[in-house]
Amino acid sequence: MLNWKIEDTKFDIDNVDLNGSRYLIGNGYMGYRGTLEEYNAKQLVALNMAGLFDRNGDSWRESVNAPNPFYTVCNVGDEILNPFNGNVIAHNQTLNIRHGLHSRRTEFKVGKAIVTVIAERFLSMKDENLAVLKFTVCSDRKITINVNTKVDLNVWSINGNHFNVEETTRNDDINIIKMSTGELSIPLWIYEKIVGADNETTVTIAPEKSFTFTKICGVYWGEKCDDSYINFASLCDKTYETLKSEHIAVWDNIWENSDIEIDGDEEAQKAMRYSIYHLCSIAPRNTEKCGIPARGLSGQVYKGAAFWDTEMFMMPFFSFTDRNVAQNLIKYRINTLDAAKRKAKEFGYEGAFYAWESQETGDDACTLFNVTDVFTNRPMRTYFKDRQIHVSADMIYGLWNYCTVSGDYSVLKKGGLDLMLQGLLFYYSYASFKPLKDRFEIHQVVGPDEYHERVDNNAFTNKMISYSADAFIKALNYIKENDYEYYEKFIENNDISWLNNFVNKLYVPVPDENGIIEQFDGYLQLEDIGLDELKKRILIENEYLGGGNGLATTTRILKQADVVMMLNVFRAQYNTEIKKANWEFYEPYTEHGSSLSACAYAIVAAEIGMTEWAYKYFMKTATIDLTGNTKQYLGSLYIGGTHPAANGGAWNTAIFGFAGVSYTDECLNITPRLPKKWNSMKFNLLWKGVKLMVEIKGNSTTVKTDSDITSLNVTVNGKRI
Amino acid sequence: MLNWKIEDTKFDIDNVDLNGSRYLIGNGYMGYRGTLEEYNAKQLVALNMAGLFDRNGDSWRESVNAPNPFYTVCNVGDEILNPFNGNVIAHNQTLNIRHGLHSRRTEFKVGKAIVTVIAERFLSMKDENLAVLKFTVCSDRKITINVNTKVDLNVWSINGNHFNVEETTRNDDINIIKMSTGELSIPLWIYEKIVGADNETTVTIAPEKSFTFTKICGVYWGEKCDDSYINFASLCDKTYETLKSEHIAVWDNIWENSDIEIDGDEEAQKAMRYSIYHLCSIAPRNTEKCGIPARGLSGQVYKGAAFWDTEMFMMPFFSFTDRNVAQNLIKYRINTLDAAKRKAKEFGYEGAFYAWESQETGDDACTLFNVTDVFTNRPMRTYFKDRQIHVSADMIYGLWNYCTVSGDYSVLKKGGLDLMLQGLLFYYSYASFKPLKDRFEIHQVVGPDEYHERVDNNAFTNKMISYSADAFIKALNYIKENDYEYYEKFIENNDISWLNNFVNKLYVPVPDENGIIEQFDGYLQLEDIGLDELKKRILIENEYLGGGNGLATTTRILKQADVVMMLNVFRAQYNTEIKKANWEFYEPYTEHGSSLSACAYAIVAAEIGMTEWAYKYFMKTATIDLTGNTKQYLGSLYIGGTHPAANGGAWNTAIFGFAGVSYTDECLNITPRLPKKWNSMKFNLLWKGVKLMVEIKGNSTTVKTDSDITSLNVTVNGKRI
Repeated sequence: MLNWKIEDTKFDIDNVDLNGSRYLIGNGYMGYRGTLEEYNAKQLVALNMAGLFDRNGDSWRESVNAPNPFYTVCNVGDEILNPFNGNVIAHNQTLNIRHGLHSRRTEFKVGKAIVTVIAERFLSMKDENLAVLKFTVCSDRKITINVNTKVDLNVWSINGNHFNVEETTRNDDINIIKMSTGELSIPLWIYEKIVGADNETTVTIAPEKSFTFTKICGVYWGEKCDDSYINFASLCDKTYETLKSEHIAVWDNIWENSDIEIDGDEEAQKAMRYSIYHLCSIAPRNTEKCGIPARGLSGQVYKGAAFWDTEMFMMPFFSFTDRNVAQNLIKYRINTLDAAKRKAKEFGYEGAFYAWESQETGDDACTLFNVTDVFTNRPMRTYFKDRQIHVSADMIYGLWNYCTVSGDYSVLKKGGLDLMLQGLLFYYSYASFKPLKDRFEIHQVVGPDEYHERVDNNAFTNKMISYSADAFIKALNYIKENDYEYYEKFIENNDISWLNNFVNKLYVPVPDENGIIEQFDGYLQLEDIGLDELKKRILIENEYLGGGNGLATTTRILKQADVVMMLNVFRAQYNTEIKKANWEFYEPYTEHGSSLSACAYAIVAAEIGMTEWAYKYFMKTATIDLTGNTKQYLGSLYIGGTHPAANGGAWNTAIFGFAGVSYTDECLNITPRLPKKWNSMKFNLLWKGVKLMVEIKGNSTTVKTDSDITSLNVTVNGKRI
Repeated sequence: MLNWKIEDTKFDIDNVDLNGSRYLIGNGYMGYRGTLEEYNAKQLVALNMAGLFDRNGDSWRESVNAPNPFYTVCNVGDEILNPFNGNVIAHNQTLNIRHGLHSRRTEFKVGKAIVTVIAERFLSMKDENLAVLKFTVCSDRKITINVNTKVDLNVWSINGNHFNVEETTRNDDINIIKMSTGELSIPLWIYEKIVGADNETTVTIAPEKSFTFTKICGVYWGEKCDDSYINFASLCDKTYETLKSEHIAVWDNIWENSDIEIDGDEEAQKAMRYSIYHLCSIAPRNTEKCGIPARGLSGQVYKGAAFWDTEMFMMPFFSFTDRNVAQNLIKYRINTLDAAKRKAKEFGYEGAFYAWESQETGDDACTLFNVTDVFTNRPMRTYFKDRQIHVSADMIYGLWNYCTVSGDYSVLKKGGLDLMLQGLLFYYSYASFKPLKDRFEIHQVVGPDEYHERVDNNAFTNKMISYSADAFIKALNYIKENDYEYYEKFIENNDISWLNNFVNKLYVPVPDENGIIEQFDGYLQLEDIGLDELKKRILIENEYLGGGNGLATTTRILKQADVVMMLNVFRAQYNTEIKKANWEFYEPYTEHGSSLSACAYAIVAAEIGMTEWAYKYFMKTATIDLTGNTKQYLGSLYIGGTHPAANGGAWNTAIFGFAGVSYTDECLNITPRLPKKWNSMKFNLLWKGVKLMVEIKGNSTTVKTDSDITSLNVTVNGKRI
C-alpha cells in the first residue's frame, strides 16, 4: 500500500492550511478538507458542496461550505485535546488514496496520562450524501474524558455566512438541521446519527481500553432534500464497516479503468496516483449541473467556478477512462449554453461566449476587476472575462475530443451541435476581416498567458477557433451521414452560409523562417529579458506581473506559453522540428506562474526527445498538491487549494508524453518514450468504446483488449497492431 | 499701449520659471525665454532653435537650445548684480506684444549707491537670424562697474549638452563661435558684435549718467551657415534703432491681418492679443522644414516636436490670416510623408501613419513609454504613438481645411493629394470589417481623451476618418475638373478602387435616443462618477489618471471630450440640440487635463447659447500662458512652457464661437453672439483669398472687402450679403 498512502508522521503547525488541501477527501458531491476533527473555521475546515453557490451581500458569489458533520473534540477537565494547545506526543495523519479514507492518530499528554485519539472518515463514493466517521479515544491510564461531537456551523467561508438555520429537530435518534442559503433560499439539510455515543458523552476509560463511536451523516441540498429523510433512514442503519466496504468497492472499480502503474519509480508512481485520486474525488458522477471547480472541492477559492481548465486539461482523462463523467461535464456546458448566449449579447456579439468563471447557471462569475493592485490597493481592470475568448473554443474542443476518443456522438444531437455552432457564431461576430490581407483576424484577446492582455492574433486562440470550425464541419457531416432528418432540420433552422468563408480565411499564425510561431502580433518586438532580470525588478513580492502596468506586460516573459500549449493540444499537426524550436525559444521566457504551464512543457519535451526535461516538468505537475509549491497569492488575492487541472496535466503527460499516445479522428498511435527510471508502465484506455489494456516494458509495447472488434485502428510506433 | 503690454512690476523669485515662458520672444526661427540678461541654465535660459534637433546618448531626442547671445552681467567689486543675490529695490519686466520687444529695468542697492540696469531686446522679425540687445547701466552715485557680456554656453538643456565647440575666432570686431551638434554634426554658428563696449568693460559712471552698449548677434544653423558671415556682416553695421524699426515694421504688418479688436473688455482684449502674439512669434515663416512644437519655442518640453495640435488648433488661424505660414506648415507635413509611410510599415499597416511627435524628418519621436508611474517609478506603456491614429486624419483636415478657406488648391498637386490618399490607405489597412454588421469599424485607438486607451469606434477618430475620405474625394474631383491630365496620371499610379466601399461602410457613431453620441463603444458602461469623487481617490498628486491602471481609465472621467471636440470641428453638421445634449452630458466628466480641452467647450457653448460658460472657457484658454495655471507635471514628467494650441484655441473661440463664423466648402456665415461685456469685435479674415474686414457692433455686423469680387458667398445670420 506504500504507493497508495500519503502520510504525515508529526504535527507541524505550518502545514495546517496546506494539509487541508493535501488530505482532501471527496466524492464528487462534496469535498471535505484534510483538517482534524477538533478543528474549526480558523483552520479552514470546509465541507465544500459541488454546484451549490450563494452570494452574501456585495461580496462575490462563491461555492458554499456546509457545516462540519465530523466535528468532534475531547476534553479532560479544562484541557481540550487539540494540537494547537500543545502537548502532542505523537501524531499521524494518513490519506489512503486508493479508497478515499482519511485517518489520524494523535497522542496527547494529559497530566500523567497519554490519551490517544484515532479517527477515520470518508465521504461515501457509493451513496454520495453520506459522510461517515469512526472515532476512538484511549488512554494508558484510567481517565475520564468528555467527548463532544456535533454538526459544527463554525466553518471556513471566504465571504461570510451563507446559511440561515431554519429548524433543528431530532427524530428516531437522528439529529436534523434544516438550513437554506441566503441569496436563493436553496435548502441544505444535514442528518446526524451517532452510534455508541451521544452528542455529549462523558466516559471513563480503563488503561489500555478504548472508547469508540461512529457517526453517519447525510448531507442533501436542493431538490434532493425532498426524499432525503427516507433515503438517509434507509442508509444510516448500516454499520460503519458495511458502509466502508461498499465505499471501497466503488473506488476499486474506479481504479480498474483509471490507474497507471509505473514500475521503477516509487515517487512518480505515488504522485501519478495522487493526481488521479484527486480527479476521481471531485468528478461529477451523478449530475449534469456542475463542472469541476478550478480548485476542485478544496474550498471556495476562484469562487468554486469551472474554468477552461476542465475541458483542456481534465477532459482527456475522463474521455479515456470514464464516459459517464465526461458526458456529465459536456452536458453541463450544453445546459449553460443560454448563459453563454447572454454573455455574448452583453458584450455586443452573437452566438455563445462561455463564462470565464462558470457557476451553476453558466453566467459569468468573473468580474472585470479581479486582481488588486498591491501598490495602490485598488481593484485592477483585467481582461479575463471579456477578452479571454478562447473559452468557447475550449468547450468545442472538449466536446469534439470526447466524441473522437469515445466514438460516442450522442451528445451532438443533445445540444452539442448547437453549442458548437453558437460558439463559432460568436467568433465570427468577434472576428475582424482585413480586406487588404483578405483574411479574418482575431484581435484584442487574452491567451492562456494572461500577462499579455488585448493582443492581436494570439496563436493559441486563433488555432483553437480554426480547430473548432473544422470540428463543427466534421460533426455536421457525421450527423448528415447518420441522421439526415436531424441534419436537414438543423441547417433549416440555422444559417451556416458564412461558415466556409470564415474557416477558409481565418488567419492562424505559422512558423517563421526559424520555425518560431509568434505568440501574438508584435510579441517578438517586446523587451527581450529573462526571468532573472524580471525578478530583479519586482518591488513587492506579490505584485501582479500582468495587467496594464505589470512587469511582464511589456516583455517577452510569459505566465505560460500559449504556443507550447498549442503544440501540445495539436500534437499530431506539427512536426518535431517546429516543436523543438518553439519549446527551446519560449521556455526561458516562461514563468510557469500558472499550474497549467508545466504539463504542456512536459508533453512537448517528451515528444521532442528531451525526456529529462519532460520528467522534471511531469514531477512538478504531478506533485503540485503534495508539495504545495504553488503561487498562494495573486496580487493580494488568496488562490491556494488543490489543482485538478495540473492533476489532469499529470495524466496527460504520462499518457501523451511518456506513453506517446496520439490520435487523429480514426487512429490511435502509441510511441513510447518512458523516463529512464521507469521499467514499465501499464494503463487502460477506452478508445472508441473499447477498453485497451496497454503495457509498455522496455522496448516492448503490448495492447490487449477484452472485446473482439477488429476494425479498431491502433498503431504502435506507427505500425498497425 | 495698455493692451499690448505684459508687465511685472516687482521681482518674484517664484515666477522666474513661469516668466521664462510668459515673456518669451520669438521670430519663428528661434525663441528666447523671458529670462534676465544675467541668468543662466539654472533659471532655464534658452534660445530655442526651431527645427534643430539632437540626441545626447540614450536620452530622448530633443530640440536644442543654442548658447545665450544676450548674456550680460554687471558687478561692482565682488557684488554681482543679480536679483538672486538680493538687494533689488525696484524691478520691472515688460513684454511689448505688439512688437515682440522684451525690456527690463532693475534697481540694485550696491553699498550706498542705487545702480539701475536697463535692457531691451528682440529677435528680428525682419532678419530671422538676428538677436539684438541694448543694455544700459546707470547709478545715482559715482561708481565703477564691470560689465561682462558674452555668448554664454551655460543654458538650459533637459538632456544635457548638444554642442561641440569647434572654433572661436574674431574677425573685424565680430566674435565667431562655430559649433556642431553631437548626433548629426549639424553646424550652428553664432556671431557677436558689440557696439560701445567690449566683452569685458570696466566703466566709471558719473551720478545720473549712464553707460549704454548694443549688441547684435547672428545665429545660423545648417546650410544657412554657408553664407552666414556675408549675411551677418551686411546686417551688423546697422544701428540698434534701425534694426528695431525694421523689426517693428514687420510686426505691424503681421497685426494688420491678425489682430482682433475687442471693445469693452480690457482683460479679454489683452489675453486675445497675447494669444495671437504667441502664434505669430513661433510661426515658421521661412521654412517648410519644421512644424510648430507643442510648447512653441519656449523650450524642449515635448521634445520640440509638432503634434496634431498644429493642424487642429492653430491652422485655422493661419489659414484665415497668413497663407504663407499655412502653406509652410502643410508643406512640412508633405515633406515628411515618407516618414509617415515608414511608421505605417513599422506597425504593419499600409499608407501613411503620421508621427505623434514629429521632429525634422517626421519620424516619430514619441516612445512607447512616455509616462513614469509615480507608484513604482517605472516607465509606463502608453499608446500615444501607436494608437492615437487620428493624427493622419488631422493632417488631411489641416490640408483640406486650408484649401477650403484659402481657395488655394495648389498644395494638392505638390504632394497634398498623395498625403491624403496615403493617410486614407493607412486607415483602410487599419480598419476592421465586421461582416455581420456590414460595416468597417476602427478598433483599439486612443482619442484626444487620452485617459481611455485602446477603445473601439472612438467617435472623434471615426468621424475624422470619414471626413478625410470625403475630403479626398472632393480634392480628387477638384483636380479632375482643373487638371485632367494630372488626375489621369494620379489614378493611373494609385489604386483607389477600395475607397468608395470604405467610405460608404465606415461606421461613425450617431446620437442615441437622448441625442448622446457615445465617445467610444462601451463608454456608457464605465463607472459613472464625477470629478470630485475621482479626485478623492487620488493617492499621489501627480499620478497619471490614464494608462492601464489609471483612476480615470475605468470611469467616465475624461481628459478632454472627444465628442465635444468633434461637434466643434464639424460644427456645421450637427444641430443645436445634439450639441447641447452632448455638451451638458460630457462637461461634468471632463477634467480639462489638456490645454486643448477648454476651447472646444467654449466654442460649442457659444453655439448653443451658453455664452457665460463660453466666456469662462474662452478666458481659461486665452489666459493660459499669462496665468501659468496649467498642469506642470504628467506623472513625473515636466510639461511646462507655452501652449500655442490653446493660443490657437482662443482665436478659434473668438472667431467661431463669439463671432459665430462657420463655413462649408463654398459659403462662410457669420452669426455673432458676443459675450455681454463686449461692445464690439473687429477682425479680418482671408476667405478664398479675399480679405474680409468684419465688424460686429451690437446687433449690427458689417463685412467689408478691399476687392471687388462678387462671387464670394458670405452670409450674416444666414443672409447673403
